[in-house]
Amino acid sequence: MKIHDIPGFPNPLRIRIALAEKGLADQVTFVKVDVPAAENRQDDFLALNPTGTVPVLELDDGLCVSECTAITEYLDNLDGAPVLTGRTPREKAVIHMMQKRAEALLIDAVGDYFHHATPGLSPALQAYKSPDWEGRADWGRRQGDKAIAGMRYFDKVLRDQPYVAGEAFSMADITVLEGLVFAGFAKLAVPEDCTALIAWNARLQERPSVKNPA
Amino acid sequence: MKIHDIPGFPNPLRIRIALAEKGLADQVTFVKVDVPAAENRQDDFLALNPTGTVPVLELDDGLCVSECTAITEYLDNLDGAPVLTGRTPREKAVIHMMQKRAEALLIDAVGDYFHHATPGLSPALQAYKSPDWEGRADWGRRQGDKAIAGMRYFDKVLRDQPYVAGEAFSMADITVLEGLVFAGFAKLAVPEDCTALIAWNARLQERPSVKNPA
Repeated sequence: MKIHDIPGFPNPLRIRIALAEKGLADQVTFVKVDVPAAENRQDDFLALNPTGTVPVLELDDGLCVSECTAITEYLDNLDGAPVLTGRTPREKAVIHMMQKRAEALLIDAVGDYFHHATPGLSPALQAYKSPDWEGRADWGRRQGDKAIAGMRYFDKVLRDQPYVAGEAFSMADITVLEGLVFAGFAKLAVPEDCTALIAWNARLQERPSVKNPA
Repeated sequence: MKIHDIPGFPNPLRIRIALAEKGLADQVTFVKVDVPAAENRQDDFLALNPTGTVPVLELDDGLCVSECTAITEYLDNLDGAPVLTGRTPREKAVIHMMQKRAEALLIDAVGDYFHHATPGLSPALQAYKSPDWEGRADWGRRQGDKAIAGMRYFDKVLRDQPYVAGEAFSMADITVLEGLVFAGFAKLAVPEDCTALIAWNARLQERPSVKNPA
């Protein structure tokens, strides 16, 4: 199978960590997409993924799968022994709930802040910026506030349990980890009083899949 | 188990259709949340779901699950015979990909349009409106354009296959169905040339779970 992505970017790293967790790194060929040059908005790439996002998993029969949750479901269930997406109905429910929160409250909010309230990577990727109005923070900057509030939410969660979805590492941890990486890139600092989140992040940086993603 | 929701609203209906699909309607007690009065933003409700959205599934032991994908994963896997979320890695991947697209390109885009570019339900639910700027469409109205583009995308998908995720009905169909319901409520009309989407919608309106949700 192939993964179309760009090394070092937050959403691609989510899948590279998942590949390392599952021991699948050597079964994948990576195809680089030049995102800063907006190659992901060109027709050739849009034929693989009409929404224009990386990463994309391309199976040997040509099926293309985008969206990190979907790709992770595939990779995690290939061997019949899921460790990132849950085994029981209850585990699946909590992991998918926290995955969605990690996207909506953190990594997607950071992305919207980055593309709307900062120069971003290039106008080719995000030409429209939500406007300012009467000195109030615009929509884009509000997404930065939302991401900070998201950090505070996950800090609260991690005061009571070792991982984002409970007692075990899951895809929701990966999403929060890369949300923080993206936040750092966008210069959104984790509040100093988020001590549980900061300690969790430091601990997971030592995890083999995070230290050495695919 | 309990479901906290409000009858007739699009995201609650997603779960009520899923309950009907799984034959679980008689195992659920519904608790009404007064969303127009912003009861979902009050402390009592936020204790169940800190993101303030309906529906919320409350299990008998007190665990609360929000987010339709997560609730559907729970309900669909309870009997060990999933029919809405996929059985094989490939089915899971495609269904989760299309579920995410149905949310991002349609139902969430409609919601953002409704709350930002129209009066919405009440200021208590969405006081901030993204501003206009130099006569250009503002962010909220752009979400309406995004929803229409999403309809065109699903129309194209449904020209080649009977259901949103392929040959079988899945949770992604439910999400597109309720995205169209929400669009109608927000007065975003399906383009007349989206004939495959319109025919699919008419066909699914006859499906028992859609005609008689829980």
